Amino acid sequence: MIKTVPTIGFIGTGVMGKSMINNLLSASYNVNIYTRTKEKAASLLHQGAVWKQSVASLARDADIIITMVGYPTDVEEVYLGPNGIIENAKPETCIIDMTTSSPALAEEIFTKASKNQLLALDAPVSGGDIGAQNGTLAIMVGGDEEVFHQVLPVFKVLGENIIWHGSAGAGQHAKLANQMTIASNMIGVCEAIVYAKKAGLDPVRVLDSITTGAAGSWSLSNLAPRMIKGDFSPGFFVKHFIKDMTIALESAQEMGIMTPGLSLSLDMYKELANMGESDSGTQALIKYFDRTF
Amino acid sequence: MIKTVPTIGFIGTGVMGKSMINNLLSASYNVNIYTRTKEKAASLLHQGAVWKQSVASLARDADIIITMVGYPTDVEEVYLGPNGIIENAKPETCIIDMTTSSPALAEEIFTKASKNQLLALDAPVSGGDIGAQNGTLAIMVGGDEEVFHQVLPVFKVLGENIIWHGSAGAGQHAKLANQMTIASNMIGVCEAIVYAKKAGLDPVRVLDSITTGAAGSWSLSNLAPRMIKGDFSPGFFVKHFIKDMTIALESAQEMGIMTPGLSLSLDMYKELANMGESDSGTQALIKYFDRTF
Repeated sequence: MIKTVPTIGFIGTGVMGKSMINNLLSASYNVNIYTRTKEKAASLLHQGAVWKQSVASLARDADIIITMVGYPTDVEEVYLGPNGIIENAKPETCIIDMTTSSPALAEEIFTKASKNQLLALDAPVSGGDIGAQNGTLAIMVGGDEEVFHQVLPVFKVLGENIIWHGSAGAGQHAKLANQMTIASNMIGVCEAIVYAKKAGLDPVRVLDSITTGAAGSWSLSNLAPRMIKGDFSPGFFVKHFIKDMTIALESAQEMGIMTPGLSLSLDMYKELANMGESDSGTQALIKYFDRTF
Repeated sequence: MIKTVPTIGFIGTGVMGKSMINNLLSASYNVNIYTRTKEKAASLLHQGAVWKQSVASLARDADIIITMVGYPTDVEEVYLGPNGIIENAKPETCIIDMTTSSPALAEEIFTKASKNQLLALDAPVSGGDIGAQNGTLAIMVGGDEEVFHQVLPVFKVLGENIIWHGSAGAGQHAKLANQMTIASNMIGVCEAIVYAKKAGLDPVRVLDSITTGAAGSWSLSNLAPRMIKGDFSPGFFVKHFIKDMTIALESAQEMGIMTPGLSLSLDMYKELANMGESDSGTQALIKYFDRTF
């Protein structure tokens, strides 16, 4: 399937996608991109990407197709729609959805792709815009293990911690486990900072005491200082975290698992969105607890 | 107050206390200890500690008194009881409670101690038995800053990350913030592992994907692998975590702060204790979610 220089069709040129495409171009891959308006792709075209005027034309002319879009509905449209990838890609094309999306949808895409001799992987990432820029994303992959090994060179351009987790949907399941872990931890981080402040302590000194021990976490080290400073600029958007937690909760419920921590966190973030914080970073959760932050 | 070689009276010779006393003896302090039964102190007496037959006699013959006991009721008895420390210590003695206990009780002890010209600090720790053994505890201190600096050489024998947080009770508040952070995080860690297992993934591979990123935490790195292996031996006892969370919740409620994550975690741990897991390590929370672990 992979020739000397495979052509990669990439859909999704947001903050993450842009950096990933740049890394693929730097690694000498041919990269075709599709965007609704060509103007938005100007900088990528300048870097050497080639613009395609439809998903269908992108799909027809690719050895590997990578998607990094927004919501499961976007994934569904771009893969399963009448002018979508599955209808138009050549047999043996490897199609990789790197969006954080529903495991059930990943399975559906895999099944439909297989009928057209397409090789589907789900491969969501963690590591954010910095990880995308530096090519250090964690990539969690589901689908056929053999196909995973075939496209591993491409994943290695994009990330560092690249793990195959099982059949179709397994990559999404792993990513949802990641988001679940964060969901409850964010509650604890906020409660501790609000408590410290109300008790009259200096929250920065409290962080100095607690970040290196058993309470330590990425969120405590990286997001708690921003909460204290009142810096709510988005590393990861509240609205995207709500999307991910919603998918995780639905998936957990389908599997009959109770996740009261996830439910509590999702409720809090929905209320936070109602407060007008959808486009803030996830550290804005502190405002749910105390609006004076 | 501190002579060339101060005499330290130490009450509380449990797992933590024993290691701390050993470190003080190694640093050439004179250490007097009190235990209800002398036999239990045999190894410490062999190391050079001197046994006292009552709290009162220990208190009368000390420059610094350190307590590391179990519950706030124990702290209350040993400090405020009729034969307790405050009634018997010499003026200018520095009295340091290192138990994780109630901030309100720490304030009460400080006030009553001051009336007898005693210098009280609250100085709970984190870092567990390993931190106590290696002298690498984090120590969170409340009380007069000047007194804190006077006894800093003693703290430096016991720990590494030693921070003064403010007036009496501030050390306890900082420690409770630590426990609050852990409380909610444990929920997320358990939910993620149960979810991964039920989704048919290998939880160990999922940890490989998620521990180094934004979901990462001390609990995920250190306790999740034990959950997966079914190793529930105590690093930190369920019953002690319940004690700490109960104090934290009471303190938060006194301050009018909502802590739904802490409440949820405490309820789960109480149910876990009802399942017979009081003497397990805190990682046993996974059994609350899934008894097959």
